[in-house]
Amino acid sequence: MSFAHKHLMGIEELSAEDITLILDTAEKMSEVSRRPLKKVPALRGKLVVNLFFENSTRTRSSFEIAEKRLSADTLNFSASTSSLQKGETLVDTVLNLERMQPDCYVIRHASPGTCQLIHPFTKAALVNAGDGTHEHPTQALLDAMTIRQKKGDFKGLEVLICGDISHSRVVRSNVFLLSKMGAKVTVCGPATFMPPHMGSLGVTVTTDFEQALRGKDVVMMLRIQMERQTKGLFPSLLEYYKTFGLTEERLRLADKQVIVMHPGPINRGVEMASEVADGPYSVILDQVENGVAVRMAVLYLLLGGSEDETAH
Amino acid sequence: MSFAHKHLMGIEELSAEDITLILDTAEKMSEVSRRPLKKVPALRGKLVVNLFFENSTRTRSSFEIAEKRLSADTLNFSASTSSLQKGETLVDTVLNLERMQPDCYVIRHASPGTCQLIHPFTKAALVNAGDGTHEHPTQALLDAMTIRQKKGDFKGLEVLICGDISHSRVVRSNVFLLSKMGAKVTVCGPATFMPPHMGSLGVTVTTDFEQALRGKDVVMMLRIQMERQTKGLFPSLLEYYKTFGLTEERLRLADKQVIVMHPGPINRGVEMASEVADGPYSVILDQVENGVAVRMAVLYLLLGGSEDETAH
Amino acid sequence: MSFAHKHLMGIEELSAEDITLILDTAEKMSEVSRRPLKKVPALRGKLVVNLFFENSTRTRSSFEIAEKRLSADTLNFSASTSSLQKGETLVDTVLNLERMQPDCYVIRHASPGTCQLIHPFTKAALVNAGDGTHEHPTQALLDAMTIRQKKGDFKGLEVLICGDISHSRVVRSNVFLLSKMGAKVTVCGPATFMPPHMGSLGVTVTTDFEQALRGKDVVMMLRIQMERQTKGLFPSLLEYYKTFGLTEERLRLADKQVIVMHPGPINRGVEMASEVADGPYSVILDQVENGVAVRMAVLYLLLGGSEDETAH
Repeated sequence: MSFAHKHLMGIEELSAEDITLILDTAEKMSEVSRRPLKKVPALRGKLVVNLFFENSTRTRSSFEIAEKRLSADTLNFSASTSSLQKGETLVDTVLNLERMQPDCYVIRHASPGTCQLIHPFTKAALVNAGDGTHEHPTQALLDAMTIRQKKGDFKGLEVLICGDISHSRVVRSNVFLLSKMGAKVTVCGPATFMPPHMGSLGVTVTTDFEQALRGKDVVMMLRIQMERQTKGLFPSLLEYYKTFGLTEERLRLADKQVIVMHPGPINRGVEMASEVADGPYSVILDQVENGVAVRMAVLYLLLGGSEDETAH
Repeated sequence: MSFAHKHLMGIEELSAEDITLILDTAEKMSEVSRRPLKKVPALRGKLVVNLFFENSTRTRSSFEIAEKRLSADTLNFSASTSSLQKGETLVDTVLNLERMQPDCYVIRHASPGTCQLIHPFTKAALVNAGDGTHEHPTQALLDAMTIRQKKGDFKGLEVLICGDISHSRVVRSNVFLLSKMGAKVTVCGPATFMPPHMGSLGVTVTTDFEQALRGKDVVMMLRIQMERQTKGLFPSLLEYYKTFGLTEERLRLADKQVIVMHPGPINRGVEMASEVADGPYSVILDQVENGVAVRMAVLYLLLGGSEDETAH
Repeated sequence: MSFAHKHLMGIEELSAEDITLILDTAEKMSEVSRRPLKKVPALRGKLVVNLFFENSTRTRSSFEIAEKRLSADTLNFSASTSSLQKGETLVDTVLNLERMQPDCYVIRHASPGTCQLIHPFTKAALVNAGDGTHEHPTQALLDAMTIRQKKGDFKGLEVLICGDISHSRVVRSNVFLLSKMGAKVTVCGPATFMPPHMGSLGVTVTTDFEQALRGKDVVMMLRIQMERQTKGLFPSLLEYYKTFGLTEERLRLADKQVIVMHPGPINRGVEMASEVADGPYSVILDQVENGVAVRMAVLYLLLGGSEDETAH
């Protein structure tokens, strides 16, 4: 079975079959990363441009490692040193890069819809690495890979996502993915962090964290952007933690086999207690590991490597 | 035929035959960039140091892609993070890098003559990627490649270069190249932007843009450094555009088959109207594409790859 | 003979045999860097993360070149753009990177003992590229390689190290190494720059530079951190130079075959006269060249390349 898409702009446009194909491919890629010689020639002679308009060392590093393990050539093009400072528009930047014949752009940008904006101007594959509050599809895919490894299946799974719902691209991509795969999603957070349209996405919405935790199979805590505090969106970090922080005690409300997730980096003592982050239910570092595998899989499927090239 | 030079410090020291050899080689390299597997082993095991003392993501990216397509190892060494901040001189930096056995330096620096200054201290090939107001030879070569593709030959071609003549390395390299190849060059710009010696370079000098446009085969618009405005060198961007901006109406004064060029990034509505930049006569993006090809050709010719290594 | 260590955290834990093995391997690596094709496949498919929490273009470039000559994949992860700015701890950063399956971290950090701190959290090899005032083992090894090349043996060699002793990781690593190899070390500097414990390391301590120079086979001048001047640790650069600057006249006090060393970058006219830095006794640039060779050797020995992979 081959992948039916030329781009990965969001989870919204993928089918359950697409998602399963990516996850199955990622499992094979995971095996590559565990070999002594962690490299396959699948994308040799392909150029991947990491076009990052927001600082994100973690995501960029994960992509860069994925690209190198597939033997692609990589170009890191970051906005802070680019001619965008000289007043060039985003589209002009892409039109210029385009003529250097890249095979793929991995794009991180503060504006929702950046991939859609660029799309008419490129022949290359587009991978959305986070566009504003819109989507962050590889994050949702690595989350899904982690859930599937621990739970086997998504059907009927009770998933709670808690935190700053309105400013999170992670939550949107995850809601799309988990719904498509048959899981039941509840979102929880302070009322000031809850966008009005969430109910329309088919999820349960609540501000009562302890009630929401009851019986959950998966608890995904979102990162608090500390800088929002100064803008008056929430009172204090301590108060946030008191109401929405995941402690060991609260975690006992969830299912006995619950897994705890976080897209990282964690603010210990804000989103969750250190004992939870480092505890037996935490799969946070599995998420990081699966990030490389999922990104390898996406690049591999989009750039048309053939199956047998995953061998040495 | 083999290339007679060990360095590319400027166009001034090249013969018409040298230029033709580079352009012919660049056409072959252009074909490499269009293959599905865009990579040849020509410079495997060679180390190219991109030594950039001025920020230039576009030029550096173009060189970096060229180096990777030739399978060279690359090291990006930028001044902002180097020990130059600790008071080390440029020559000391080169003497140190030299002992790491690089095969080539690609150098961008604010001071004219940087390559000449470094030359006695290195065994490596030097490629000037722009030295102050002196030369920017690969820019002139990519311009020439673009002109040759569109016009076939340089003989008798009427070329107009318009803008900030006095602060432009691009104009000097282009005047040298186009004169050597038999084209007739006119330079045009505000009197405050016109250096006194231009006439001695064998070009026609004028401040009358509309008159200068008449019958031209090639119109090359130079980038305005916005920051100069604050220094009183020209009144306002709007006034500049009124007198020297390339509009569709003005472009009709030129030859019917005229091509419009710009080294990028364009200030739309300052050097030219958006309709011109994106219009049918514009070859601005061809210039970008030819940049990678010309840089591959220069590195290939200087670092002694053999002809048959352009095959897979 | 194979290397008995999994990490290179410091010289303190190495035996004389370990040091000799590294230096012998480095001599072979030096030969690789002099080939037209400067690359061996020894570490193909291995990932080396350059984890630099302090700016050091020179050291990072030397490591990066070493890694590329061994065909390793490299990831430059610098603190200024990392999520450490978002409040992530060093250990969390490593725990995250760890799940991307690196084979080695090359670590530069302002805090002594960073490698020891990270050690329990990683399966990868650790190479200390300078941790505060603690150790900088590859610097001492490249110094030793240079001394051995010029002097043949360390036994009975009289070595003087002069400068800011208390703030130098270089001096500690060198004292450990030179003592193990049988050399006699004298350290010299202003009293304000001399830590109280130096005598316990088995070295001779003095503040009389001219007396200390007499009969020395090796004179190693340390870099003065200019910024310390403003903190009142020494009076003026000129006064420092008058008392501790290495002039040609002073150098005549040393052995006739003396060699002059400096870890770079040199402050000319502060630590030494330009005539000395560029003079016949100076081996400063040999140190730079040996830096790449020593780093190739260390990476090669730690990451388990087999002997015959140094061939093409």
